[in-house]
Amino acid sequence: MAIMTSQAKLSVGIIGASGYTGHELIRILTNHPEVSLCAISSRSYEGKKISELYPNFRSICDMSLTNQEEVLARADLIFAGLPHGLSEPLAHEALLQGKYFIDLGADFRLQEESHYLAYYKKNFEYKELHTKAVYGLPELYASDIRQAKLIANPGCFPTAATLGLYPALQKLKLKSAEIIIDAKTGTTGAGRSLSQAQHFAEHTGNFYPYSFGTHRHTPEIEEQASAFAQEQIQVCFIPHLLPISRGILNTMYLKVGEDFSLEDLHSSYKAFYQDKHFVRVLDLDERAAIAPVANSNYCDISLHFDAHNKYLIICAAIDNMLKGSSGQAVQNMNIMMNFDETAGLDFIPSAF
Amino acid sequence: MAIMTSQAKLSVGIIGASGYTGHELIRILTNHPEVSLCAISSRSYEGKKISELYPNFRSICDMSLTNQEEVLARADLIFAGLPHGLSEPLAHEALLQGKYFIDLGADFRLQEESHYLAYYKKNFEYKELHTKAVYGLPELYASDIRQAKLIANPGCFPTAATLGLYPALQKLKLKSAEIIIDAKTGTTGAGRSLSQAQHFAEHTGNFYPYSFGTHRHTPEIEEQASAFAQEQIQVCFIPHLLPISRGILNTMYLKVGEDFSLEDLHSSYKAFYQDKHFVRVLDLDERAAIAPVANSNYCDISLHFDAHNKYLIICAAIDNMLKGSSGQAVQNMNIMMNFDETAGLDFIPSAF
Amino acid sequence: MAIMTSQAKLSVGIIGASGYTGHELIRILTNHPEVSLCAISSRSYEGKKISELYPNFRSICDMSLTNQEEVLARADLIFAGLPHGLSEPLAHEALLQGKYFIDLGADFRLQEESHYLAYYKKNFEYKELHTKAVYGLPELYASDIRQAKLIANPGCFPTAATLGLYPALQKLKLKSAEIIIDAKTGTTGAGRSLSQAQHFAEHTGNFYPYSFGTHRHTPEIEEQASAFAQEQIQVCFIPHLLPISRGILNTMYLKVGEDFSLEDLHSSYKAFYQDKHFVRVLDLDERAAIAPVANSNYCDISLHFDAHNKYLIICAAIDNMLKGSSGQAVQNMNIMMNFDETAGLDFIPSAF
Amino acid sequence: MAIMTSQAKLSVGIIGASGYTGHELIRILTNHPEVSLCAISSRSYEGKKISELYPNFRSICDMSLTNQEEVLARADLIFAGLPHGLSEPLAHEALLQGKYFIDLGADFRLQEESHYLAYYKKNFEYKELHTKAVYGLPELYASDIRQAKLIANPGCFPTAATLGLYPALQKLKLKSAEIIIDAKTGTTGAGRSLSQAQHFAEHTGNFYPYSFGTHRHTPEIEEQASAFAQEQIQVCFIPHLLPISRGILNTMYLKVGEDFSLEDLHSSYKAFYQDKHFVRVLDLDERAAIAPVANSNYCDISLHFDAHNKYLIICAAIDNMLKGSSGQAVQNMNIMMNFDETAGLDFIPSAF
Repeated sequence: MAIMTSQAKLSVGIIGASGYTGHELIRILTNHPEVSLCAISSRSYEGKKISELYPNFRSICDMSLTNQEEVLARADLIFAGLPHGLSEPLAHEALLQGKYFIDLGADFRLQEESHYLAYYKKNFEYKELHTKAVYGLPELYASDIRQAKLIANPGCFPTAATLGLYPALQKLKLKSAEIIIDAKTGTTGAGRSLSQAQHFAEHTGNFYPYSFGTHRHTPEIEEQASAFAQEQIQVCFIPHLLPISRGILNTMYLKVGEDFSLEDLHSSYKAFYQDKHFVRVLDLDERAAIAPVANSNYCDISLHFDAHNKYLIICAAIDNMLKGSSGQAVQNMNIMMNFDETAGLDFIPSAF
Repeated sequence: MAIMTSQAKLSVGIIGASGYTGHELIRILTNHPEVSLCAISSRSYEGKKISELYPNFRSICDMSLTNQEEVLARADLIFAGLPHGLSEPLAHEALLQGKYFIDLGADFRLQEESHYLAYYKKNFEYKELHTKAVYGLPELYASDIRQAKLIANPGCFPTAATLGLYPALQKLKLKSAEIIIDAKTGTTGAGRSLSQAQHFAEHTGNFYPYSFGTHRHTPEIEEQASAFAQEQIQVCFIPHLLPISRGILNTMYLKVGEDFSLEDLHSSYKAFYQDKHFVRVLDLDERAAIAPVANSNYCDISLHFDAHNKYLIICAAIDNMLKGSSGQAVQNMNIMMNFDETAGLDFIPSAF
Repeated sequence: MAIMTSQAKLSVGIIGASGYTGHELIRILTNHPEVSLCAISSRSYEGKKISELYPNFRSICDMSLTNQEEVLARADLIFAGLPHGLSEPLAHEALLQGKYFIDLGADFRLQEESHYLAYYKKNFEYKELHTKAVYGLPELYASDIRQAKLIANPGCFPTAATLGLYPALQKLKLKSAEIIIDAKTGTTGAGRSLSQAQHFAEHTGNFYPYSFGTHRHTPEIEEQASAFAQEQIQVCFIPHLLPISRGILNTMYLKVGEDFSLEDLHSSYKAFYQDKHFVRVLDLDERAAIAPVANSNYCDISLHFDAHNKYLIICAAIDNMLKGSSGQAVQNMNIMMNFDETAGLDFIPSAF
Repeated sequence: MAIMTSQAKLSVGIIGASGYTGHELIRILTNHPEVSLCAISSRSYEGKKISELYPNFRSICDMSLTNQEEVLARADLIFAGLPHGLSEPLAHEALLQGKYFIDLGADFRLQEESHYLAYYKKNFEYKELHTKAVYGLPELYASDIRQAKLIANPGCFPTAATLGLYPALQKLKLKSAEIIIDAKTGTTGAGRSLSQAQHFAEHTGNFYPYSFGTHRHTPEIEEQASAFAQEQIQVCFIPHLLPISRGILNTMYLKVGEDFSLEDLHSSYKAFYQDKHFVRVLDLDERAAIAPVANSNYCDISLHFDAHNKYLIICAAIDNMLKGSSGQAVQNMNIMMNFDETAGLDFIPSAF
């Protein structure tokens, strides 16, 4: 089964392809009508075929993993799925060579260097790059993305949080600028590295919170929320680990005032997301769930009101590996390259 | 394998034995050193052997399901696992006959008739019984339970909530009397009735919230919390359904003041629960999880502080079918009957 | 999101669209480049939107379910996913009207009426249709399928069995004409109907065999195997139910002679399936598994030899809903209509 | 919660306590009425509390892991859960000191040294010990176990196979002395060691065979079967890995003759196992499954006949960690020490 590449296709490459985000990028890019996947790299598995690591790729993608230099040399657009701190120099080099760079890691997600230092224990290395990097949340920043050379692909929890909160923070004058986000994720969010806690026998049937106010996605959510609320927003963000492989559901609690109208807010959501292909605002009697978005690039949002004590509850569900990572990265590429925004992303979720 | 019953053993019976709470009661009572299970009933399956419904019971308990009258006639202590509204007349009859009655349903859990009417659409039928019924949370009300003839066995979510909140509400002067409880439960909480949402193929890999401010456990949690906080406590309680069979984890958010000390509060928890066999207060660097309590009568509680925005986060985990239902019912019986509080409840949880 | 249909696209419809095979057909056909899904029907849910039954389809397919007559009237090619016995009259009517008919049920799968009577307790109703129907296993019968108007889409277990056995039965002179097939399937194989055994709490963690020599796929496997072995083949076929939603793995045992060479046989498999896009013959040190084919139209086959007692063991894995049902149905349509055989079927399986 | 130990209790210890078999032994022995767990050891975790490795044990067993020497010195009966080859010298030392030794590993399971050499690449080290070791399958060898000082606790698959096959091999004159055993196990069978294949995200939803005629349990099954069939029995044994934590189901195929009567054989099974507490022979219309034995020491056996081609199919299900390992080890101790055979083993399985 040859992968056909016409002259006109964009050459793309993946650095850090052996991880789970790399796996998802390969799945998407192999079927993408406008691109040709020309090189993939992995420090740990250089020389191995990707289908040896992932037998699901047999006969579909049997490319060999190479090194970063070769990806940089051969691709016109580079996706990088690396631990934080490793993308900055690569992005610098790629942009020097006139190439496009989409970082699926954390190096360019935060606006404030002080936040990066506080949560990642590191300063910005190439400061000028941070002024060029665009936060790649297409539903909010499509016009900036269209002009970008360098994309900071959002974190998985912040994607669900920001999409879920945006119209509410725009429209409501919140009595309190504090939001509680009780988040739940599948285990692919923690990646491919082995741990006792994720050994099958010990995780099946288990569920637990794993970070309390210190998760690195906290400042990312706060920066985004504060930007569009135009006031300082603080979030209490507590992630939990589900016994499933894919999917995130954020349950978000906002105290609202006496004059709150759920119907009005729902209309604002419907209006704002009307033309956004991948966001589905559910009807008021429905509730977001993980299965209807798993294995797709959709984000489902549902709104609820606890009249008893005036809490607005916003639920936002995504597939952490697609809309929360690799799917969104490709959506960003599509916009940057003026492809159809949905190209390669027409995954239809399944009920089972 | 005969079930041996000496003269001295207490005769106990189960009304509504075919449901999941009945199943768990049978598992516990069959091995209980002080009782003899003499009769079990089910309206839907009268005449069938319980081991036909539950093949796990083959050769362990092959009793036939009979009717309520026979259970009432033969048992000296009756457990009832019935939909709300059906226990009141049975409890009335049992107490008239000088018997003990432990209701695993909701008929006697609420103190305020107005709450019962609002959430269950029904008035109290035998009002005098409600003055006699004791709320069966042994860690808080053991002395009342010791005198009781009629026990209202707490709901599963309220058990985890109340045990998790009690020392905090006692000790802290909360700036806000509002608590957010983001709760997650395994599917046995919804019982044995079939539904599309719980069809295996559709629930595996899924996760979602299922009630927004209207769950019947809300007033129960509020009544308990308000009683020991000595002020009106409101909770925003949102339950979610996990793709596991057993277990509840409540993540509870309380805004605290500037002078809050997590260490002090932790000491209070340690002190209060020191002699309570089934409650384990975790160390400050640990977090509650479902697996370490599943298949046991333990409740694990962990305390966390998000210093960023001054939230105390309390996690409480139980097995919804044991400490959250049938295990607690037997613990109540043990106290009422002056048995060892842990008799029949020495289930040791497993890591896998 | 409108579904665009050009004049040139083939109008297709689905009768029995509310079941799991219908669900899968909708997922495939909605993205299929050559067809337009014009009508879907369901006896039980007529008038409802399919996205009310399956919220994953929100904004992707919001068509309303209609009746069979409308599907027959509007579509040029009809897929039917119905209990056995219901497709024959519909196929008769469709063919009278010059339309194509692909039956995902069992009505036309068996060649021998006596087998149909023995296993389905029914005679052939429209006997002449049975001479026209082509058994839709594309890897073996593509040339017949290309000419067909009426397709009997194979059963899920027979698909895995037949693809796994074909080269072996062709090449080997089997000492014994008996084959043991120990089969394992995910629960979607049993469909959408509710049962206690498939209630989530009772099936998670469970596994069991469910039929012993009487499963209706037995004669189907035997007819196929006997046809290409050119002798009478008997199979002892025992299916088991896995606690997963999708996927089949058949482990098949054949006694072989002294002169058996695994390498030679492997070469025959490689040669035979070389040009068959959806069949992957694994290397001799690899083993078929469910995850690498789940959510795709692939069939993975691995060959093993127990030298100890001269058994050839063939493992064949498919997704029961795709290659085992709806995916194969579309593959058949593609061949009949002279579309690219893989059109609409480019699902890439995932490692997680 | 103090563990009370009277003077009269037997002092027992566990070598290799940090693994999964050790975990299960701790669960059982902590509640066992006749023993006192006095020391547990682990090479990798010496000095750590067992409840640090397994938080489920908090407040139930907070013993510290020590070294082998201390266990040997303090215990009168030693359980060893070690990789093969490591138990022989320990058993030698223990017996010299007049102590009892129960080996949960493979060192003493095989009668024939040639088999041990072929499958474990090692010779017997203390040959005289092998004449003293008793194969600890209580339902067959209780009288020998009663006299034993050294027990070879059977493998998990051989336990299910041997219990399932015994009456059939005794009674039937098998036309063929070949048996196919298609076995399926939960992942605890592979222990606590981490692997990519058992990383939660990659194993959930997966299923596959993992060994073809070379599994080390093959000669153990054959030795047992041949012993009581009184002819040379060969088995084709293929194990598969299920996406569950606990449980084994063996599906076993035996070709039978024309005069075979399933009813007669069933009567033989019923008769033979009548007094064996932990073996349940199901009725002829029932089938063994994993859930009804999981978390218990039971073995369920069901018999089936495929009249079509004269195969007897025997299904045997156990919990691999209890009846297949640690539960059986304690059952052996109970018999050796003249305790009640079921002491500490009264786990009642659950339907969910």
